[in-house]
Amino acid sequence: MKFSEKHRIQFYECDATGKLTLPMLLNIVIKTSEAQSEALGRGTGYVNSLGLTWVITQHDINISRLPETNEQVTVTTEAREHNKYFCYRNFWLHDTDGNELIAIESTFVLMNIETRKMVSVPEELIAPYESEKIKTIKRGEKIGDMDSFEKREYRVRFSDIDTNGHVNNSRYLDWMTDSLSFDFLMSRQPEKILIRFIKEINYGETVISRWAGTYDPSFGGTRVTEHTIMVGETKCAEGLITWKK
Amino acid sequence: MKFSEKHRIQFYECDATGKLTLPMLLNIVIKTSEAQSEALGRGTGYVNSLGLTWVITQHDINISRLPETNEQVTVTTEAREHNKYFCYRNFWLHDTDGNELIAIESTFVLMNIETRKMVSVPEELIAPYESEKIKTIKRGEKIGDMDSFEKREYRVRFSDIDTNGHVNNSRYLDWMTDSLSFDFLMSRQPEKILIRFIKEINYGETVISRWAGTYDPSFGGTRVTEHTIMVGETKCAEGLITWKK
Repeated sequence: MKFSEKHRIQFYECDATGKLTLPMLLNIVIKTSEAQSEALGRGTGYVNSLGLTWVITQHDINISRLPETNEQVTVTTEAREHNKYFCYRNFWLHDTDGNELIAIESTFVLMNIETRKMVSVPEELIAPYESEKIKTIKRGEKIGDMDSFEKREYRVRFSDIDTNGHVNNSRYLDWMTDSLSFDFLMSRQPEKILIRFIKEINYGETVISRWAGTYDPSFGGTRVTEHTIMVGETKCAEGLITWKK
Repeated sequence: MKFSEKHRIQFYECDATGKLTLPMLLNIVIKTSEAQSEALGRGTGYVNSLGLTWVITQHDINISRLPETNEQVTVTTEAREHNKYFCYRNFWLHDTDGNELIAIESTFVLMNIETRKMVSVPEELIAPYESEKIKTIKRGEKIGDMDSFEKREYRVRFSDIDTNGHVNNSRYLDWMTDSLSFDFLMSRQPEKILIRFIKEINYGETVISRWAGTYDPSFGGTRVTEHTIMVGETKCAEGLITWKK
């Protein structure tokens, strides 16, 4: 079952290129999935009453065009498929002419709030979404380990922490992209992004954002960047970004 | 002439306390003043066509209560008074019961885009707002220089830069508050904030956020914090925050 909301892109949701930032893209689509859940009587209160909380493990983002300041977009979401443990939710952004700007496939799991362990999806929670039960587990593209890399350090700030008490998922993308140079970010646009969340990060921790790029002669520069977000020797997230000019 | 817009507070506009962040408060009110300017035919395009751009020099913020995630607020603005160089604009946030949550008095000046110098306010630009012409120049409370202070360093990130190519004003408040401890920020709420913007900050610069606190025995802790944002020996902003528990 699809659910849509309109959203006007604000100046403070855009970066120096005047286009929507990737962290804000994630915030906006999650807002829409929360609105659907509320509308179906399956909001945060209901999920918490089962002793559970949603955790996002992966976003696979395909971008035709990033919307710009003041542009109105329609955000659509659908919880399309789930198996015993994984729920697969799709998102789309369309412009006012109905052109698809962005398509996202996201993976959600349910965690027991007390034990912090993954639990199987309760039927009563998922039923209203009319999501199809499947047997397949979608593995997703592998992200290789980097032999050599550039890196940049970040201290987790108070404003990185959300009401759950840990770093909001969207910040990981900020650390990944910010580690690249200003000129790189001004001259390229993300086309495809795979990001996988592995471990929560807390206030005061030092994050190391590592990246390596693959030079593509036909592109005339770095076309794919690979990223990991580390706290000490622990990998907290990994990402793969394909760029266009 | 007053102008109002409704705004629903989103989870990504709130911090670990579940309340609207100060940087996002500034973003939201500026959004409303831009909407009024557009409605009056005095939007960014018009201002730029005169070779000018608006610069905010000061916010004086009084907070009764910070709105929370999912709360709907009404944001109202009025360009109430101006003299030869300074335009004084008021903002208010009200809850759905009509209670005033926040009141802000802001000072704007006009800058010539080419020369980067302040210019006098052209009558044709200001007329539609029905702002009263006054002779007084409002000086505002003095913020003292600190003898001794704590400090924390910040590298300006790509995401701190807005479409104007420099750090968005709202980030200064982030650097000021983040320099305080997690426990301090979780146990206190801002009640009154005076912030003065002195100089633009650019990508890649290192910002030093300095602060000193005044211990108030009747409050049982630090009640007022004084802040400066420095780049090298240059003061780029100064602030004064009164806290409540």
